[in-house]
Amino acid sequence: MNPFAGRIERFRRALDERGWIGALLTPGGDAEYLTGIRRSRPNATESHMHGDWLAGVLVTGDSCIIIAPHLAKSRLEEMMGDKPWINELMHIPEGADLEHLTRHIVDHRLGGPGTLAVPRKGMAQTILELSTLYPEMEFANTGTILEPMRAVKDAGEIEAMRKAAAVADRAFAEVVTRLVPGMTEVDIKMEVERQLFLGGAEGTSFVTGIMIRGQGCDGPLEGVSRGADHRLEPGRVLAFDFGAVVDGYASDFGRTVFIGDPDPELQRIHELIIAAQAEGMRALVPGTPAEDVDARARAVIEEAGYGEAFFHRLGHGIGIDVHEWPFLSPGSTATVRENMCFTVEPSILIPGRCFVRVEDVVLVTGEGGVSLNSTDREPVVI
Amino acid sequence: MNPFAGRIERFRRALDERGWIGALLTPGGDAEYLTGIRRSRPNATESHMHGDWLAGVLVTGDSCIIIAPHLAKSRLEEMMGDKPWINELMHIPEGADLEHLTRHIVDHRLGGPGTLAVPRKGMAQTILELSTLYPEMEFANTGTILEPMRAVKDAGEIEAMRKAAAVADRAFAEVVTRLVPGMTEVDIKMEVERQLFLGGAEGTSFVTGIMIRGQGCDGPLEGVSRGADHRLEPGRVLAFDFGAVVDGYASDFGRTVFIGDPDPELQRIHELIIAAQAEGMRALVPGTPAEDVDARARAVIEEAGYGEAFFHRLGHGIGIDVHEWPFLSPGSTATVRENMCFTVEPSILIPGRCFVRVEDVVLVTGEGGVSLNSTDREPVVI
Repeated sequence: MNPFAGRIERFRRALDERGWIGALLTPGGDAEYLTGIRRSRPNATESHMHGDWLAGVLVTGDSCIIIAPHLAKSRLEEMMGDKPWINELMHIPEGADLEHLTRHIVDHRLGGPGTLAVPRKGMAQTILELSTLYPEMEFANTGTILEPMRAVKDAGEIEAMRKAAAVADRAFAEVVTRLVPGMTEVDIKMEVERQLFLGGAEGTSFVTGIMIRGQGCDGPLEGVSRGADHRLEPGRVLAFDFGAVVDGYASDFGRTVFIGDPDPELQRIHELIIAAQAEGMRALVPGTPAEDVDARARAVIEEAGYGEAFFHRLGHGIGIDVHEWPFLSPGSTATVRENMCFTVEPSILIPGRCFVRVEDVVLVTGEGGVSLNSTDREPVVI
Repeated sequence: MNPFAGRIERFRRALDERGWIGALLTPGGDAEYLTGIRRSRPNATESHMHGDWLAGVLVTGDSCIIIAPHLAKSRLEEMMGDKPWINELMHIPEGADLEHLTRHIVDHRLGGPGTLAVPRKGMAQTILELSTLYPEMEFANTGTILEPMRAVKDAGEIEAMRKAAAVADRAFAEVVTRLVPGMTEVDIKMEVERQLFLGGAEGTSFVTGIMIRGQGCDGPLEGVSRGADHRLEPGRVLAFDFGAVVDGYASDFGRTVFIGDPDPELQRIHELIIAAQAEGMRALVPGTPAEDVDARARAVIEEAGYGEAFFHRLGHGIGIDVHEWPFLSPGSTATVRENMCFTVEPSILIPGRCFVRVEDVVLVTGEGGVSLNSTDREPVVI
């Protein structure tokens, strides 16, 4: 059975319980989850279409309506064809009177001003324009309803998550056989992405990260391109962080490769990471507070004296988006539930020496976390 | 002389004139224009960092402050090193108390609640969270100040625009020599992007579009990937739409290639497009209403009976972002000024038969529009 009509109905019931007039979902994960209509790949710089701040999916008390900027109309019409849970396409012609259209939507489709839900990454301009026309309007975050719904995956979603993980596993296996000294981060990144597409990816989940560190080779991990001209040379350490989108669901994968046999400290660091990851996976039992999962994995690294070097959260929910609620982090107030999916990705960063990470996507089952990845975790040495 | 300190000062003066307390610029074109700090490439699915809705560039009455999520801190610190116009980096640790941090910013850095400017593509959550803590706060669009500033380019910006255009010209010249029957849109797209990077691009400006049409081959132009498995076959028409980012500035380029000699109607359509583009360029004289530029080029196509097939605006401003104010479109209220840069990109789309477009980036001079591209406009036949 197709899940979308049921999701829209649950969402609408929740809007109604809160007394909200409806929701305007800009293209993104929430809109995909409810309608099955996929967003476009994002442009690398900002783009603009007439009326884009009003575009997306409008959920009212009795309708699910696509509001399409002119240039996106033909694509959206094509995608709507087999989706009877979408009732209508509303078109924004070039140069259309947006005040008139907005008043039509608020007064006639939403039954007058009130509280409208928008996604947290919705456009600021949407709120500014609506507030100018309707100063009494209020806004709420769709996430308060959709985050818990999206976090627990159904069987079809878990199947897509497995496929996305398998595409990452396969790409890693292919890339490892092609690593040779002298390759740069950009060379390796291109090969990773080539293998992801060959393996059936629709796209990457996020900006592919290829990080070579050690022997004085350093730099920020979160860069403009997340890959530069550092080369594979003996003594260095190569960390992978990449993922694929398959059937609309994301994977997120990490392993670490040593160039030449690692020295005893690097061996010890890699063992610690595997032990911390295993502890995190064991902790992913339904009912466990999410912050406890982080704390238990973190303790393994802290007790060995590397606590400062594990500088980020243990993991994040993952599904249609690579980073979804809930988060395995200090201060998280969420509770782990069966059929949630999380990354479990401890790391140790020692500037100029190494960045070591192992990362799997893990499904929460009654018996604890089960990895959706099949790549083993022994250190790879080339 | 470095332009950033002057831009921040002009922006701050304009905030002050309007009585606004300051601006919070999420990573994007506005923040790049004011600080020179480049945004990261966007992830293909949504990401999340703790406190991301509060992150970006904060401009107050006396300071320019980078607010950095934990994972972005090291990159931003590195980029700040040579930028004395940035006064401070404020760090958001994982799990930090965001209410406390927000109150510190509003009460102590901005001097209390009031009207805060945010970019139109800023996050809805920024407004929701600030409004919850400060119901009396109001929000305004940074674009009302920064759009006119960004639209008129200085000499350094024009130089970067020339370089970005040249990288596109070079890539097209290389790709054309490699086109052979049987290639798919994806094959051609990969070659375009390879040539852009070989030519010095930091990235693409937007999602590369490779569109093969004709002989029954059809589909939306604005798709998830903007390139599929349509093949180069005799009688078909191939339209290119791509651009490069160089020194932080974007190009946007289009030409059309015929597979085999075009029939008389296709020849006529291509001639019309060149004539319409030339008319649009001639109309780009300082003082001309932007909608008149669109209308003059459009008239060439309408008079030949293809008005319905030219389904979009004539062009858009371009600079740090691929689509910037002002727009050459029906209903635009802007006026053309010297040293603005626009795309001029008429097209004719006949479903199942052809999509023909020619596009240059054009600089407005006292004598009219001058193309920054050097590729000629004769139809290419392979």
